[in-house]
Amino acid sequence: MTELRIAIVGFGKIARDQHVGAIAAVPGAMLAAIASRNASLPGVPHFATVEELLEKGPQIDAVSLCTPPQVRRAQAAAALAAGKHVMLEKPPGIGVAELDPLIAMATEAKRTLFATWHSRHAPSVEPAREWLVARRLKSVHINWKEDVRVWHPGQAWIWEPGGLGVFDPGINALSILTRILPKPVFVTAAELAFPANCQSPIAANLTLTDIDGLPITAEFDFRQTGPQSWDILVETDEGRMTLSRGGRIMAVDGKVVADAPDEEYRELYRHFVKLAATGASDVDLAPLRLVADAFLLGKRNIVEPFVD
Amino acid sequence: MTELRIAIVGFGKIARDQHVGAIAAVPGAMLAAIASRNASLPGVPHFATVEELLEKGPQIDAVSLCTPPQVRRAQAAAALAAGKHVMLEKPPGIGVAELDPLIAMATEAKRTLFATWHSRHAPSVEPAREWLVARRLKSVHINWKEDVRVWHPGQAWIWEPGGLGVFDPGINALSILTRILPKPVFVTAAELAFPANCQSPIAANLTLTDIDGLPITAEFDFRQTGPQSWDILVETDEGRMTLSRGGRIMAVDGKVVADAPDEEYRELYRHFVKLAATGASDVDLAPLRLVADAFLLGKRNIVEPFVD
Repeated sequence: MTELRIAIVGFGKIARDQHVGAIAAVPGAMLAAIASRNASLPGVPHFATVEELLEKGPQIDAVSLCTPPQVRRAQAAAALAAGKHVMLEKPPGIGVAELDPLIAMATEAKRTLFATWHSRHAPSVEPAREWLVARRLKSVHINWKEDVRVWHPGQAWIWEPGGLGVFDPGINALSILTRILPKPVFVTAAELAFPANCQSPIAANLTLTDIDGLPITAEFDFRQTGPQSWDILVETDEGRMTLSRGGRIMAVDGKVVADAPDEEYRELYRHFVKLAATGASDVDLAPLRLVADAFLLGKRNIVEPFVD
Repeated sequence: MTELRIAIVGFGKIARDQHVGAIAAVPGAMLAAIASRNASLPGVPHFATVEELLEKGPQIDAVSLCTPPQVRRAQAAAALAAGKHVMLEKPPGIGVAELDPLIAMATEAKRTLFATWHSRHAPSVEPAREWLVARRLKSVHINWKEDVRVWHPGQAWIWEPGGLGVFDPGINALSILTRILPKPVFVTAAELAFPANCQSPIAANLTLTDIDGLPITAEFDFRQTGPQSWDILVETDEGRMTLSRGGRIMAVDGKVVADAPDEEYRELYRHFVKLAATGASDVDLAPLRLVADAFLLGKRNIVEPFVD
């Protein structure tokens, strides 16, 4: 198998923390170039923009877009038009509808468009899904609270329109939820807390359900200091399942039944390499659709300004 | 052909202004009952709720939901579960995802789910679509400005979460836009003006485009006194097409080429009767998806309180 030559576009925190190491660790994947206005990596060809990369760069097969969501659609369109496979960080777009033309382009060009949801590849997500499918569910609660100053230092884009605010981590929980539950869910009510100086919410409470009326609640908060929470609790007829640490640890009635090291991004690149081998796409917009619905039908509250 | 026995659920302004007359005028449709907490019509069996209608009412084949969008999903689910065909006023839901389980129920029960977009049946919409498909488009502008006090007197639900505010009429423009343009469109930017005391916007400016970069702008405003505007202007390589009066009149370079009486709601019921004959569904969520995206990625501005 020839290696998939990948260029990372957008070389910020997530690219450095996760993508570089994952590409290095996955057989069949190699980092061939970086496109970033500000940052580079010694020994890797560097270009300022995706256009410059596509024009003047080395031969590449694929781009992995790690830029903020506000600029990704145009970059994905340019890469697909140049015949490259495209991997999108989450969220896949600033809107749901902008993905349609990209899907059409990828299909027509027989190139891969992969909208990633890294949290779905947390090690206990599949065990949880398999455990739940055999039980009768009574209720679900999501508790997803982190300190934005710790996890998103200086990321101004997150507060701009299209930046999602607390839904940037919250959509990770929704990506797990929509994977582990047996039936599609939808938002019935939401309360969104917007800092007076921000365009994106700093906290949100959601009420969701499915066709059977399963009660689902979610609390997202970016103002959590002290202990951080990335937990999903499911009450069933055979006990309470807890998925904690963002999908890493699964417990039933307090007893840990699954816990493995995090390989989320390696799993993403393994999957990307497989998809690119045939040019197949993998785009599930369900998590982003839930967030769009929360904005659409949510009650807005204005809260105190946020200063990074 | 036996007649489709239809119950109107929710007997407010739109039901009285449009639905009753349209059902009476369409062969194959008949008004068999009304479910409404407050209102009734002499000579038509009346029930307080959709549940009471389904339990104790006369034999019906279908329900037409004219209630505010916030309560329609549960009513649609109840009607489908009872084996009835369902017609939904626009917008089809308070969120996009809540339609999925209804579509699944309708498909499984072989019953019709018809998400209506009455403006698409305005008389000049099809002529406009056919004219545009043969031209090269340069730009599109939507000007949709009406006086909310005239058209939505006392409709408090429109300002509540899920009520859409100015997008309640604006989605009519988007339903026409998504019908007459040859390629799918998506929102790239939006500004939403929220009155300080309301949960829904009173005005909105949208920027949209398609895969070819067609520039599309839309101005929605609920504060328009004096002349009202429901116009779509399309600049093409063969002149400017204007669709005015909400899709009633089509002109090219100022010359009227199509103008016919409004039969929007009669067209809806003709289509519903046809769909119900085979239990086929017709649900296009594109207009609602654009509104959800506008809320998701839009910049929010707070403007002066609105008092009805």
